[in-house]
Amino acid sequence: MGNLLLSFRWKTADFVRAEDFVAQLAQSIDKMRSGNDWRIIGIGIGAPTANYYTGAIEYAPNMPWQGIIPLQRMTYEATGIPTKLTNDANAVAHGELVFGAGKDMKHFSVITLGTGLGSGIVVDGRVLYGQHGLAGEFGHTQVDPQGRQCNCGRRGCLETYVSIRGIELTYRELGGQEGLNPRDIYLQAQKGDYIAIETYKRTAQILGNKLADLVHLYDPEAIFLYGGVANAHPLIIPEAQAEMERQLLKAFRSKVKILPSALLDKKGAVLGAAALIWEDVK
Amino acid sequence: MGNLLLSFRWKTADFVRAEDFVAQLAQSIDKMRSGNDWRIIGIGIGAPTANYYTGAIEYAPNMPWQGIIPLQRMTYEATGIPTKLTNDANAVAHGELVFGAGKDMKHFSVITLGTGLGSGIVVDGRVLYGQHGLAGEFGHTQVDPQGRQCNCGRRGCLETYVSIRGIELTYRELGGQEGLNPRDIYLQAQKGDYIAIETYKRTAQILGNKLADLVHLYDPEAIFLYGGVANAHPLIIPEAQAEMERQLLKAFRSKVKILPSALLDKKGAVLGAAALIWEDVK
Repeated sequence: MGNLLLSFRWKTADFVRAEDFVAQLAQSIDKMRSGNDWRIIGIGIGAPTANYYTGAIEYAPNMPWQGIIPLQRMTYEATGIPTKLTNDANAVAHGELVFGAGKDMKHFSVITLGTGLGSGIVVDGRVLYGQHGLAGEFGHTQVDPQGRQCNCGRRGCLETYVSIRGIELTYRELGGQEGLNPRDIYLQAQKGDYIAIETYKRTAQILGNKLADLVHLYDPEAIFLYGGVANAHPLIIPEAQAEMERQLLKAFRSKVKILPSALLDKKGAVLGAAALIWEDVK
Repeated sequence: MGNLLLSFRWKTADFVRAEDFVAQLAQSIDKMRSGNDWRIIGIGIGAPTANYYTGAIEYAPNMPWQGIIPLQRMTYEATGIPTKLTNDANAVAHGELVFGAGKDMKHFSVITLGTGLGSGIVVDGRVLYGQHGLAGEFGHTQVDPQGRQCNCGRRGCLETYVSIRGIELTYRELGGQEGLNPRDIYLQAQKGDYIAIETYKRTAQILGNKLADLVHLYDPEAIFLYGGVANAHPLIIPEAQAEMERQLLKAFRSKVKILPSALLDKKGAVLGAAALIWEDVK
């Protein structure tokens, strides 16, 4: 239970239309099935701005496919296999709940740090979907009304600062060289490079300040960081925790821990999305 | 069910210590009970920064009683009557859920506009308390990191702009006369006074922008405004709704209504707090 047996990797950006991606997926599944005696009971998909209730990706600001993409139905029709779709960050939260450090928690949040910033929120032991299946868009809460322009159209969204692109931009704004990604910048920081250290410090402070808002609203037991950027957690968590504590109402202080996800190196989004299908077969 | 039979009014500020308030309450209850054949089955209390799990008011920034006040236990000991305590905004949310416009909703938020700004959040048909009983402090999420100093110690909290004091300060900053309260300013606005109109417009815009954050996180069906300031809703809601729509991710637009609370003139906090006790006697 909860083991990853096979892994493929495609870039969505390589598929102009979602139809092409689904065709590729169906073909690969057919290949996998031929000659094997095991059965695929379901497909779980985690995708940005995905709606758990409608099974569609809805206007994802960071994807090549525009508008409303009914990926759940498209996948089911192309494969004949029962399919569930959820927001990628909700998939991680579900994984953390089923396999990870959230197994014994009732209230926690997962922040995914990648191209954008997503969040999956667990309330009373269940992933929060909200009225329209869209809850948990922490990346599009506002840090600064006059801040950086976000792909979503709004100004100063958290993900314009705390994400791959946000960290790269901060590094360049502070005078760092062009073309370095967050991992390069992290390695620079470990070598003592001042601009790289300062980049992570500012990123962590912005995150920590905004996490105080998150705590004030959801009152979780813990906040888990997941995604590529979260591998730099030794440079992010202590500073973010300190800033969060400074910004919290007194009643909340010293109560909420920021931690690296227990699934950080374990493809938590894949496991969590896959586990969605168990809810129907149990 | 859900009728207000008697109403008293004291100012907490008139009681230096919480003990004095509780003594006054116990005395009044004794007087009420003597000579009557009905029975008081419980006491429900709504109070700022109150913790539903511990039964205590914890470091309320806008109250005379400092530190941790175990008001639930104090009230029970003084009266012998089972007592429950919750955040005042959670009490309104509970009232809206049991008696108000939220009866048929699963996900909604109530914003209380008074001395401060509180919020009660309903998720999957239940008031959200979170891990430590403190969830829903929307008033202490940040509008502007360099903004107004809040009583809680943080800068730029929403309640420093959208509350009685916030509106009064905005009015004075715009050149309005001293000594007017939000109701006076509302009446001025209705007479066409430019500064008063602008005061409500800016207040509504700040609220609407921040409600976009709330919607991104909780994804509710509706947001209800409650409290004294909410009586000015004709000057607040259209502008707040318009600004919220501008700030929302596309997937959320035209889905979430801002409405005056159905309990606006009906002491919703009192009814909601009282109804807490039913959960134990049902």
